[in-house]
Amino acid sequence: MTLLERTIESIRPLDEEAMTAARVRQGRLTKPPGSLGLLEEISIQVAGIRADPRPAITGKTVIVCAGDHGVVAQGVSAYPQEVTGQMVANILAGGAAINVLARHVGARVIVLDVGVLSDSPPCPNLVVSKIGRGTSDMTCGPAMSRRQAVEAIEAGINVVGREINRGASLVATGDMGIGNTTPSSAIAAAICRCPAAAVTGAGTGIGASQRGYKADVIERALSVNGPNPSDPLDVLSKVGGFEIGAISGLILGAAAARVPVVVDGFISTAGALIAHGLAPLARDYMIATHISVETGHRVMLDRLGLAAFLDIDFRLGEGTGAALALSFVEAACKILDEMATFESAGVSDGQ
Amino acid sequence: MTLLERTIESIRPLDEEAMTAARVRQGRLTKPPGSLGLLEEISIQVAGIRADPRPAITGKTVIVCAGDHGVVAQGVSAYPQEVTGQMVANILAGGAAINVLARHVGARVIVLDVGVLSDSPPCPNLVVSKIGRGTSDMTCGPAMSRRQAVEAIEAGINVVGREINRGASLVATGDMGIGNTTPSSAIAAAICRCPAAAVTGAGTGIGASQRGYKADVIERALSVNGPNPSDPLDVLSKVGGFEIGAISGLILGAAAARVPVVVDGFISTAGALIAHGLAPLARDYMIATHISVETGHRVMLDRLGLAAFLDIDFRLGEGTGAALALSFVEAACKILDEMATFESAGVSDGQ
Repeated sequence: MTLLERTIESIRPLDEEAMTAARVRQGRLTKPPGSLGLLEEISIQVAGIRADPRPAITGKTVIVCAGDHGVVAQGVSAYPQEVTGQMVANILAGGAAINVLARHVGARVIVLDVGVLSDSPPCPNLVVSKIGRGTSDMTCGPAMSRRQAVEAIEAGINVVGREINRGASLVATGDMGIGNTTPSSAIAAAICRCPAAAVTGAGTGIGASQRGYKADVIERALSVNGPNPSDPLDVLSKVGGFEIGAISGLILGAAAARVPVVVDGFISTAGALIAHGLAPLARDYMIATHISVETGHRVMLDRLGLAAFLDIDFRLGEGTGAALALSFVEAACKILDEMATFESAGVSDGQ
Repeated sequence: MTLLERTIESIRPLDEEAMTAARVRQGRLTKPPGSLGLLEEISIQVAGIRADPRPAITGKTVIVCAGDHGVVAQGVSAYPQEVTGQMVANILAGGAAINVLARHVGARVIVLDVGVLSDSPPCPNLVVSKIGRGTSDMTCGPAMSRRQAVEAIEAGINVVGREINRGASLVATGDMGIGNTTPSSAIAAAICRCPAAAVTGAGTGIGASQRGYKADVIERALSVNGPNPSDPLDVLSKVGGFEIGAISGLILGAAAARVPVVVDGFISTAGALIAHGLAPLARDYMIATHISVETGHRVMLDRLGLAAFLDIDFRLGEGTGAALALSFVEAACKILDEMATFESAGVSDGQ
C-alpha cells in the first residue's frame, strides 16, 4: 500500500463516547445550555477528534504550502510569478501577515515548498519537497501527472505527520502561490459541477473584465483536460496545483492522526474538496474559518457541509483566516475544560 | 458641569491624520491592498481613535456590569433572580465563561456592581457602586429615577477611567443580570421605534409562548412609562437597567479617553444605543463583535451603523463575544505595526 492509501485507510469516525461526555459537561457548565453556540459545538467536535472528553491544545502549527502555476502564462494574476518565491522568503523572515497572526495566537509557521519555481536558502522552518518547478499550463494539457498529484499529497501527509510528532495537536492549512485561485476555481467547478464563472473571483485583485477572461481560461482548461469529477486525483492532476495537493495531504494526515485541522480560505478549501473526495470521513476533522470574498468559496463550503464563522472579508490566503481561528478552537477547548459547573460554583440551575 | 456632561463634551472626532497614515501603510504592506478586509479597517479605526498611526495595545480589560431587575417579578426569565449574585461570585472566583475567555486573550476582568440585590465579599476585581438593589418593576412605573440613570452611567465612566489610568488601551463591555434581555429589548423598541415583539428573544432560554408573554410585558412597560425616544436618559430611567446605564458610561468614558471599546452582544448594544443617543460621536469608538442569537440585536446594530463579524450563535453576555474580539483588535494593530512592506521585504508590487 502507498502512504496515501495507508493514510486514507487509517481515518476513523469521531469518537462518540468522548463527544457525549463533552456534550454532557457543556450542559453542566455555568451558562445557559447552548449559549456559547459554535464554541460549544467545536469543543464537542474536538473531543470526538481527539477521543478525549476534555481535550487540551498543546501545540499549534500553520503549514503554508507553496507552489507555482504554469497557467500564470495566460495572464490570470495581478502579481508577477516571482512573487511566490519572494513571499516564501518573506514568510521565512517573519514579515508576512501569516507570521504576525501566527505569533499572535502562539502558533509555529512551517513552509512546505512543493513546487516554487525559485529556490530559497535553507531555513529550519522550510521543508523543500518540490514535485516540480511550477505546474504545467493547464490550458495546454494536465497541470501535472497523476503520479505527481499523489506525490504532492504525500508531501503534505509527511509534513503534518512530522509536526504532530513534534507536539502539534491542532494544525492550520495555508497557501502561497501566485495564480492559485485559478486552479482552485477549476477544482471547484469540476467537483461541484458548476460553470467556472460561478466560482471565479478577483484573486489578488484583477478587474471585472479580467475576471471574465479568467473564467474563460478555466473553462478552456476544463474542456482541454475533461477531469473526472468523481476521481479527485484526476481533478487534481488535470487542473490542480502542487500546493493544493499538499493541502489535501495535510488534511488527510491530520485526520489519520486524530488532529483537528483548521481549513483556511478559498485555496485551502479546494484542497479540502480533494481530501474529502479521497476520504469522506476526513470532513469531520475539518474546521472552517472565514468566508472568503472570493466567489465560489461558499459553493465549496456548502459542498463540504462546513460553516464559516468569521465574516471579515479576507482574501489573502497564507493561512491568515485559519491562524485567527486557531485561537478560537483553543478557546473552545478551554471553555470545556476550565469553566466551573453549576454544582462546583454553587449557582442555581435554570427552571 | 456634571461628570456625565464633561465626559460627553470631551469626546472628539477620530484623528484623520493618523487614519490616513495607517491607511497608506496598510497599502504598502506585503499583501494585496485590502486583502485583510475588516482587520485593516479596524487597524485604521484604532489609529484614528488613539491618534497614533501605529497604535499598540498595551492592556486589555473586560468590565462586567452587574445589576438586578424588578421586572423579573413578571416571570420573564428562565433563571431565578439569585443567580445574578451567584454568577458575580463565580466571575470573581474565576470560573465563569468570561474568565476563561479573558484569560485566553490576556485581558483583566473587573466586575462593576451597580445594582445586584445581594452583596459579594470584597475582592480586588470587584467595584461596588450600587445605585440600588435591583431596579423597580418597569411594568408598574419607571425602572429608576432620572438621577439614578445618571449615577449608573457615571459609575461606568469612573470605572473605565480607572482601568485606563491603570494601563488599559482597549476595553470590552460585559453584563450580568438575570432578566436583563427584557429592559434591553424595551430600550431597543423605544429607541428604534419598533414593536416589542420584533426585538424580543428567548433570553437565557424561555420557550416560544413565554416569548410572546415577554413581549407583552415589554409593551406594558412601554405603555405605562411612555419613554421619550429622543431622550436617552428618559428611556434608560423608564425601561432600563443599572448595568445597562453603566455600560453606556463605559463607552462614553472610553471614547472621551480615546480608547477603543469592544461592544459585546444584545445587552451591551442596548447600552451602546443609550451612549450613542447621548453622544453620537461615541459611535466611532465602538467595535461590534458577534451577532447575537437574540432577536433585535441586528436591529440595534443597524441603528448604530455597526457590523458584527463573529457568526458564532452566542447568547450568553458577560462580555464573552467581546473578549474573543479583543484578540482580533489586537491582531489588527499588530498587522499594521509588524508586517514587512513591499520595499523592506523586496517583494514585487502588483501590476
